[in-house]
Amino acid sequence: MSDRRPKKTDLMSESERNAYHAQKMAKKKAARDKILATKTEERGLVIVHTGKGKGKSTAAFGMVFRAIGHGFKIGIVQFVKGKWGTGERDVLEKFPDQVTIKAMGEGFTWDTQDRARDIAAAKAAWETAKAMIADTAYNMVLLDELNICLRYDYLDIAEVVEVLKNKPRDTHVIVTGRNAKDELIEIADLVTEMTQIKHPFRQGVKAQAGIEF
Amino acid sequence: MSDRRPKKTDLMSESERNAYHAQKMAKKKAARDKILATKTEERGLVIVHTGKGKGKSTAAFGMVFRAIGHGFKIGIVQFVKGKWGTGERDVLEKFPDQVTIKAMGEGFTWDTQDRARDIAAAKAAWETAKAMIADTAYNMVLLDELNICLRYDYLDIAEVVEVLKNKPRDTHVIVTGRNAKDELIEIADLVTEMTQIKHPFRQGVKAQAGIEF
Repeated sequence: MSDRRPKKTDLMSESERNAYHAQKMAKKKAARDKILATKTEERGLVIVHTGKGKGKSTAAFGMVFRAIGHGFKIGIVQFVKGKWGTGERDVLEKFPDQVTIKAMGEGFTWDTQDRARDIAAAKAAWETAKAMIADTAYNMVLLDELNICLRYDYLDIAEVVEVLKNKPRDTHVIVTGRNAKDELIEIADLVTEMTQIKHPFRQGVKAQAGIEF
Repeated sequence: MSDRRPKKTDLMSESERNAYHAQKMAKKKAARDKILATKTEERGLVIVHTGKGKGKSTAAFGMVFRAIGHGFKIGIVQFVKGKWGTGERDVLEKFPDQVTIKAMGEGFTWDTQDRARDIAAAKAAWETAKAMIADTAYNMVLLDELNICLRYDYLDIAEVVEVLKNKPRDTHVIVTGRNAKDELIEIADLVTEMTQIKHPFRQGVKAQAGIEF
């Protein structure tokens, strides 16, 4: 990621380098301003955080807090119970007027080992999610780990896509979880993939408060 | 990302499928428990969020809130001013006993076009960062957009690496920004790359409250 090539600026004096930098940055700013001028639409987005790396739910959690700062009303449906730790819940519960959390899952699928129960829990969670999305009192709805339910076909991807495509115009919907389906990516406005480059588990470090939960 | 191949489970009855699932999940759980048993160390981590996608600072912001929930004391140094919007600041300011924010930057480099001023601001921010890291009252220190200063060589990567390698044992340090240097990745415990798959700018949608700032 570092640039190992000798740089154009290496042979410059400090003042030449400053002038060169100013020129380059002015060009960047002009290009950026030009792009921004074409972006005029404002509407609720369908946002997907996927990939095998960390940060999918954490970035969504960060967006929820940013939205709290803007006075938004936010609905959260947790499709996998026990996924969020006490850290998250304790701090979200400080904003009861703005945040509604529904933890509908029954625990990680490898903990329950009961497919029929998982499907029933997923379907119940999806009903709650649909009601929140339809309710325009909510500015943002987070469907945490919905992708895991779609991946195991606990829910019908066609129905989920249909609901998201027809969501109220101004509502932001965030979907997290690895293995996002193509059909979901297709209709999303913003998709980010989190890729794990290095993980402390490799070095024998255990999951810790404030980091993993 | 969807699985297009016909699946083993397609020909099974519902009860066969449930039994198959239970067996598969039990295997997964056993494998997972075995891995977790080897992870016993607990210590502060050096965490890097990099890549061109969104969510680098937002995931760090999410970690800060999780840490607030755990009663941690958190120091934040913003190396680029104006990066965080009012949404973030307003909600962080609700926790003055736990969160200290220092916005040291002078604005995006393509806005200032003044390299000498940028360098001075980066150096001042780094001094603050070093003091926070050394102060064991902080459980977590977030160096937001430090990577941009390192990329432009406003700060010496060797010195930054030295400080992070010698940080207090229990302190978590999070570094964000695209183009993380190899030297930083080398010493980090946890590195996640955020990759942009789809962005609403392409469709003429502008930056919006709660999403971009």
